[in-house]
Amino acid sequence: MESVLRQSKAMCPFLNKTSTTALRALSTTSRHASPGGGSMSNLTKIAARCPVMGSAMKTAKARVMGAGSVAALRAFSGKANTGRAMLHTSRPVEAKIEEPPFAHEMYGKKHPARVHKNAVKFDYEGFYNAELEKKHKDKSYRYFNNINRLAKEFPQAHMADKGERVTVWCSNDYLGMGRNPEVLKTMHETLDEYGAGAGGTRNISGHNQHAVQLEAQVAKLHAKEAALVFTSCYVANDTTLATLCSKLPDCVIFSDSLNHASMIQGIRHSGAKKIVFKHNDLADLEAKLSALPAETPRIIAFESVYSMCGSIGPIEGICDLAERYGALTFLDEVHAVGMYGPHGAGVAEHLDYEAHLAGRPRGTIMDRVDIITGTLGKAYGCVGGYIAGSSKFVDTIRSLAPGFIFTTSLPPATMAGATAAIDYQMNYQGDRRLQQLHTRAVKASLADRDIPVIPNPSHIIPVLVGNAALAKKASDLLLEKHGIYVQSINYPTVPVGQERLRITPTPGHVKEYRDHLVDALDDVFVELNIPRTPAWAAKGGFIGVGEPAAVPVEPLWTDAQLDVEDAVKDIKKTMKTGGVMEALLERERVRVAAAAA
Amino acid sequence: MESVLRQSKAMCPFLNKTSTTALRALSTTSRHASPGGGSMSNLTKIAARCPVMGSAMKTAKARVMGAGSVAALRAFSGKANTGRAMLHTSRPVEAKIEEPPFAHEMYGKKHPARVHKNAVKFDYEGFYNAELEKKHKDKSYRYFNNINRLAKEFPQAHMADKGERVTVWCSNDYLGMGRNPEVLKTMHETLDEYGAGAGGTRNISGHNQHAVQLEAQVAKLHAKEAALVFTSCYVANDTTLATLCSKLPDCVIFSDSLNHASMIQGIRHSGAKKIVFKHNDLADLEAKLSALPAETPRIIAFESVYSMCGSIGPIEGICDLAERYGALTFLDEVHAVGMYGPHGAGVAEHLDYEAHLAGRPRGTIMDRVDIITGTLGKAYGCVGGYIAGSSKFVDTIRSLAPGFIFTTSLPPATMAGATAAIDYQMNYQGDRRLQQLHTRAVKASLADRDIPVIPNPSHIIPVLVGNAALAKKASDLLLEKHGIYVQSINYPTVPVGQERLRITPTPGHVKEYRDHLVDALDDVFVELNIPRTPAWAAKGGFIGVGEPAAVPVEPLWTDAQLDVEDAVKDIKKTMKTGGVMEALLERERVRVAAAAA
Repeated sequence: MESVLRQSKAMCPFLNKTSTTALRALSTTSRHASPGGGSMSNLTKIAARCPVMGSAMKTAKARVMGAGSVAALRAFSGKANTGRAMLHTSRPVEAKIEEPPFAHEMYGKKHPARVHKNAVKFDYEGFYNAELEKKHKDKSYRYFNNINRLAKEFPQAHMADKGERVTVWCSNDYLGMGRNPEVLKTMHETLDEYGAGAGGTRNISGHNQHAVQLEAQVAKLHAKEAALVFTSCYVANDTTLATLCSKLPDCVIFSDSLNHASMIQGIRHSGAKKIVFKHNDLADLEAKLSALPAETPRIIAFESVYSMCGSIGPIEGICDLAERYGALTFLDEVHAVGMYGPHGAGVAEHLDYEAHLAGRPRGTIMDRVDIITGTLGKAYGCVGGYIAGSSKFVDTIRSLAPGFIFTTSLPPATMAGATAAIDYQMNYQGDRRLQQLHTRAVKASLADRDIPVIPNPSHIIPVLVGNAALAKKASDLLLEKHGIYVQSINYPTVPVGQERLRITPTPGHVKEYRDHLVDALDDVFVELNIPRTPAWAAKGGFIGVGEPAAVPVEPLWTDAQLDVEDAVKDIKKTMKTGGVMEALLERERVRVAAAAA
Repeated sequence: MESVLRQSKAMCPFLNKTSTTALRALSTTSRHASPGGGSMSNLTKIAARCPVMGSAMKTAKARVMGAGSVAALRAFSGKANTGRAMLHTSRPVEAKIEEPPFAHEMYGKKHPARVHKNAVKFDYEGFYNAELEKKHKDKSYRYFNNINRLAKEFPQAHMADKGERVTVWCSNDYLGMGRNPEVLKTMHETLDEYGAGAGGTRNISGHNQHAVQLEAQVAKLHAKEAALVFTSCYVANDTTLATLCSKLPDCVIFSDSLNHASMIQGIRHSGAKKIVFKHNDLADLEAKLSALPAETPRIIAFESVYSMCGSIGPIEGICDLAERYGALTFLDEVHAVGMYGPHGAGVAEHLDYEAHLAGRPRGTIMDRVDIITGTLGKAYGCVGGYIAGSSKFVDTIRSLAPGFIFTTSLPPATMAGATAAIDYQMNYQGDRRLQQLHTRAVKASLADRDIPVIPNPSHIIPVLVGNAALAKKASDLLLEKHGIYVQSINYPTVPVGQERLRITPTPGHVKEYRDHLVDALDDVFVELNIPRTPAWAAKGGFIGVGEPAAVPVEPLWTDAQLDVEDAVKDIKKTMKTGGVMEALLERERVRVAAAAA
């Protein structure tokens, strides 16, 4: 390839006028993509019209087709028929070949078959080895911990050895819904009545009342016309963006720089033009949006809670810009559903807390977002993902997205369990409020010890370590010495130098667990000599930690929304400083116990 | 874009020397793809070195960056701060922008912001409408049937109305494992002990003993060093091919023309060069393989059972070619696992039946296949997918594939249930043998009525209809008039003109169900005047139906492998012609009942 490039000496009017992303779009988009169908890329079609490429392609095709001649076929089939029984096959009419074979074009004019005998074949195992070596060298090789979360001893788990208990502090089962009795009861009943699996794709025997009910529930949750369920939100994001952006003519995607891998992949797979805007930077986004003609279709893809740093997207500002510049909004609420808003619909719902509490979704920010995606595998405790939006949009994705069409449906019990989980959280605020109080308590306790937390308004507690090997060591030490499981987060999930321990409290992480965590972290920070907040401050601060002029970050959940406003006032009147949180949590504990009794 | 092309008047040495697939590979491959990471495509890097593109890119970048100036930022942020509470966010160091913004490049020199006020914005709802209209017009719009498969009344289901029963004849729960008592018991117990969901990705609290056990079981099943489980085999195929083929330097993929959508997508997503070979045509494959230099890495991607026509891939011949030309073999056994071979490992195992039965996998065809992919959602009755291969290969995919890394693990109960299902089928041949006998019986009964079945050696029964509207009508009529659910298979799943009803018998489809099905089909063929075999024969035959010189297709499972060789001989001695199958099935029924008692 490099030598071909070096041969390139003259100007190219086509390349000159066409961006690389447009070329990509041309080369990856095509009219139809079907198994047994096949297609030509738009670039191939265009290339066929070019005076140079067109004739070259015809020659190459004729040459390779000639190689598969009758003589070659006979010589070969004699050999293939010997030995084990030849298999009979049906002979469906051939699908069209997607691309003409360019082998000769690409590798020169000599007939390469003669080269084979003495040439060295590619060493695949050596290649795997080299790839793995790279991961070991840059410390990004991952060792999985065997963590078996015990439903009846939440938030505890056992390791490979059943007797070895640990406390899990990094699960995304944020609300403990994975062990919620109503969810489990529903799943048991559905398992008995409808079996283990769906038995087919949605089109072929895998569509059922559980899918209908779950999608109706999701649509209701987000106050949208329709919803569609996928095997995961990774797939939902990937196949929805890939399908939508490849179909919309000349679509341009504006993607937040910290977007999740599933969106990055979906955008890449669409072949559409992608413009990355700075994380949560409305000015940067507007500058880029305004550079396109009004009629160009465009999508702004972003998240509500960015899970590795806990930052929250400026949803309203993005909706404003989207309306001004004619963009669709694509909002990933994966880490927010179940966790924010009076019904757990996410941050978009939370921003109009009172309106949604009163059952008035129209005109709210959530109402203005075109496409919301979410998961059933985090706060809802199950597995699966979804999109919600207008009926026509959802029907279009349902009809065109390969990642939806060509895969087995989620099991009936999973869908029924997820429906029960959403329903439960729509009608009960206690879990997410207690989760928020626990988050506040952990953040406050860590601050007391100068353990550096990247500041954010959400439920994520990213403890900054800043070094890959050190973060892994800290995680290992927490597990082995203290019986606490917090996974270290290294590159490529976060940038190099920003390695962290990501802590996620749940309603089950009561005082004894918190005290244990904070003491253990303190000990590990000492033992490994990990820099604390003052050390970062001495360097002028880093990603919000120890920054001199940093404004305190207020949590998104206000005291009023947590229903603790009056209690906090009462406690503050009578208590000495520092004990407010403890008194508040004790009050909550008593209240929850009373409600349960 | 078209006008840009029309302006193109001169020759281009780069395009002349480079195939479109190579361009695609350059534009979609990049060193790193991570959330919060970002990257440049290789084409962008190369373009930067070009005398024309390089300078054009620099200019464009500078121009757009200028638009996001301090003044613009201030003007905007003032507005965004009004209204609802502004959200605080953390400020991680910015990831690099993937592509420089080419907006001006692509759309001309005028500043387009001025155009916005009066210009017409893109009509997204109108676009969805148009896409859906297309589907309605070409009869490819899909209406899902609400089918609730009843575990205790297999193979029956109820519709939306619980009282309305139908018999399911098209599920991929081929062996009824979805209601297998051992699978359900395991799932109930795991649900109680470990809860509804995994609670995280495999790296972050979602790895557990269930994953370890399932992967060990899959590796054992296929006699491979290692295995890796994904949320589905769609994802397994997609992300494995995309990752492997984008990482292997200058990799070329040879893809069977009838490959499943998941492989087609994975190949497309890899950006690697793809060469399609004619379905099951070894001569065509060899001609194409031989056209590359020996050292070029290459992958042959194919299936064992092609699910829509029931044809079976020439696995041994492909292994021969792969060894001769230094290719990796990537075999999708999705529709074969559980169904073929003495342990249900698939067609590759079946081809060396005796060796595998004797526990000698080394040197067999299955041993020679490099990568096997399979599903837990069809014959194993659950949900999920996997790859199996060498340890280094599996570890590489585990370490690099975004579709594996960035998604929530399957629930513990699902993984435990799937492990139980594989184990059960490894130790019991009865289900798949009975399934094969039922398949033979249905095929024979349909042949007696001249109902056209596309001939094949597998368990799939594709009844040819040959018209989209007619196939849908036939499916609707079966459901509404006869209480039988068989989904019609239309474009894009099969080519236009090859529309069919795809029937899949199970061990539960005993004589009364079969008689009902055959009578109902006969009635529907009369009512809708669907062509029968003689009608196709009068036209010279079509895709194996009514072809004059067609050799009878023998099923892959021989009488000896089905353990009915002696019984067939005995029955033939004493019975009149035509009753052999019925007598055989009655004998099987008595044998199974005796074993269960």
